[in-house]
Amino acid sequence: MLIVKKFGGSSVADKERIFNVAKRCIEDYSKGHDIVVVLSAMGKSTDELIAKAKDMNPNAPKREMDMLLTTGEQVSVALMAMAMDVLGVPAVSLNAFQVAMHTTSAYMNSRLKRIDSERIRNELEARKIVIITGFQGINKFDDYTTLGRGGSDTTAVALAAALNADACEIYTDVEGVYTADPRVVPNARKMKEITYDEMLELATLGAKVLHNRSVELAKKYGVQLVVRSSLNTAEGTIVKEDVKVEKMLVSGVAADKNTARISLIGLKDEPGIAFKIFNLLAKKNINVDIILQSIGRDNTKDISFTVAQDAVDEAIMVLEDNKNSITAQKIDVNKKVAKVSVVGAGMMSNAGVAAKMFEALFDCGVNIHMISTSEIRVTVLINEEFVDKATRAVHDAFMLEE
Amino acid sequence: MLIVKKFGGSSVADKERIFNVAKRCIEDYSKGHDIVVVLSAMGKSTDELIAKAKDMNPNAPKREMDMLLTTGEQVSVALMAMAMDVLGVPAVSLNAFQVAMHTTSAYMNSRLKRIDSERIRNELEARKIVIITGFQGINKFDDYTTLGRGGSDTTAVALAAALNADACEIYTDVEGVYTADPRVVPNARKMKEITYDEMLELATLGAKVLHNRSVELAKKYGVQLVVRSSLNTAEGTIVKEDVKVEKMLVSGVAADKNTARISLIGLKDEPGIAFKIFNLLAKKNINVDIILQSIGRDNTKDISFTVAQDAVDEAIMVLEDNKNSITAQKIDVNKKVAKVSVVGAGMMSNAGVAAKMFEALFDCGVNIHMISTSEIRVTVLINEEFVDKATRAVHDAFMLEE
Repeated sequence: MLIVKKFGGSSVADKERIFNVAKRCIEDYSKGHDIVVVLSAMGKSTDELIAKAKDMNPNAPKREMDMLLTTGEQVSVALMAMAMDVLGVPAVSLNAFQVAMHTTSAYMNSRLKRIDSERIRNELEARKIVIITGFQGINKFDDYTTLGRGGSDTTAVALAAALNADACEIYTDVEGVYTADPRVVPNARKMKEITYDEMLELATLGAKVLHNRSVELAKKYGVQLVVRSSLNTAEGTIVKEDVKVEKMLVSGVAADKNTARISLIGLKDEPGIAFKIFNLLAKKNINVDIILQSIGRDNTKDISFTVAQDAVDEAIMVLEDNKNSITAQKIDVNKKVAKVSVVGAGMMSNAGVAAKMFEALFDCGVNIHMISTSEIRVTVLINEEFVDKATRAVHDAFMLEE
Repeated sequence: MLIVKKFGGSSVADKERIFNVAKRCIEDYSKGHDIVVVLSAMGKSTDELIAKAKDMNPNAPKREMDMLLTTGEQVSVALMAMAMDVLGVPAVSLNAFQVAMHTTSAYMNSRLKRIDSERIRNELEARKIVIITGFQGINKFDDYTTLGRGGSDTTAVALAAALNADACEIYTDVEGVYTADPRVVPNARKMKEITYDEMLELATLGAKVLHNRSVELAKKYGVQLVVRSSLNTAEGTIVKEDVKVEKMLVSGVAADKNTARISLIGLKDEPGIAFKIFNLLAKKNINVDIILQSIGRDNTKDISFTVAQDAVDEAIMVLEDNKNSITAQKIDVNKKVAKVSVVGAGMMSNAGVAAKMFEALFDCGVNIHMISTSEIRVTVLINEEFVDKATRAVHDAFMLEE
């Protein structure tokens, strides 16, 4: 079997953990499997490099940011190869140039286009464990690019697809995908299986187990993923196209505190205003989540929407700068909000899910500010202080612990 | 003009120094020159990476060491490009893959074979300052290699040769090449010019201004070097083939405390013993400097030689392990020795240099243990405690301050 294993930054944060990961990989290698390991940068080292860059130049050129950041994973893979050598197993580390990992041209948020598999295959044939830098690629200019946050997951999935791997294991600090955050909902249950679409909705909603883009890619190439713990050998959660087990109405509840609501009050009720607003934000690469438009006083309208917390200051700045052209009388912000969502493929053929969720929230006295739905998801925006209570209430309502 | 400028690790050790170097480069850039900058890793970062590796694996595979170490220069060049961007000058950083810098296959002590100049030329044509990682290369397996200590000097010289540069400036923390170490000999004089051969002898002897291999390369390709300070704009020393100024008998005095004497006592007086000894050391990559063979008691002979301090333990180990086969009755070590050398192209046609040096040492009461000479150099081994006194005495004897 050819197995791709991905370990995040916390799994390789120090010597002890690196050896721990090395031993895990060697276990499968010793059974005769071919092992490809994808690593992130050690612990907080990417954040440290970013801080160094910001100190040098608050608006550092993105090309040079990528040149800087890619060193992080290269350190991880080299040290991992050294650890495996101590343990008596032949290993070789490869960076994006050596693989090679071809991406689109954009820096800091690139997308993988094509992976050359020749070198990896040659090294595997020589019975080496191949350790590859996650998160990074090279573009047509022969420059380093990075894939954005969570990019190492994407690297692993893309490698699994390119190599036609038999398994793609994503190791994290949790045992798998849960019906809710176990720290908030003590009786949350680890799911055995989940569909790509459900995982996508959960990932977007802050479940933080797998990065969205990696799940999209897995879905596109039919790469079956296993999310499991790097700390123990528990079975983990399988992410795949079609879940064979009895379909639950709802498979999980996700909460996301990293959200802020912005309201534009007293907008002129004329065509093109909404376009202007969201175009301004899109140009700054600010992702908008839930949008709500309502009728205001005196022939005006109000538009509210949510953005991630770290984007809110920039959003406010661009909106204030263009306050006149977007005809806003007032711009209002609330950072003390959170999203709670229920996700489930079973929802599609079942109308009562949203109502049941709203009922659960009403029963525990939580007011809903905004609502957004997709085919397999219902999301509500509530006050941040109620988020844990709301998550537990919704989890209970759908009896997810069973 | 196309100018290659090389700055060592201490010149880019922190933000302030990086900006300092950036400004210096921009000064020449603003005059219309094309600028190629070669950088080492920041401050002690290479040593820190080595320590990390040793902690992981005391016998880390050399290939992986190079994979690890090359990240150091990549960080430097990216941060430098960010600094230049702040200062409003377009710059681009390139690593060994991007250039590309082709080397021999050996890891950790590779030699440059060929440099592709196309990308550099394109970036220069776009009026960018091109910032290149020193010390590193790639071999035919598409693996990173490093050029050994002082490798960034070599990178700069090789680039100057490949690009047919008009000047190659090596920036250090001293103002140039002196007739002796100014900290020891207060009236030491900065030389305006020095030949490659003199510089080679001085480099080997611990003058530490330029790495040997880079001088060899400069000589081979006729690249004229300027050694100058990164801290001020003083003129520096030109290193070239033929020095036009009046030839001094002796151009400089060098001292090297990084030396130890090993004596093998009571060796059998039979053919092949010396070969055996130095072959054992060569296999361990231990460089032997001065060698002295003398007749011992009872039909035996003694062989003494010097090695660098950091090689002495390994040398003793391999010799003790083979004590019987090399027929040594006793192995004796003295770490408290130092070398003092006089160097000068003028020596070749002048017989009295060695005698004059010995006289100066005798006059100040310094005993000579061993002597070694080349066409343009006389070296003596003395007790370490006398090294400063001896250096000053020899410097005075040749009136180098004039």
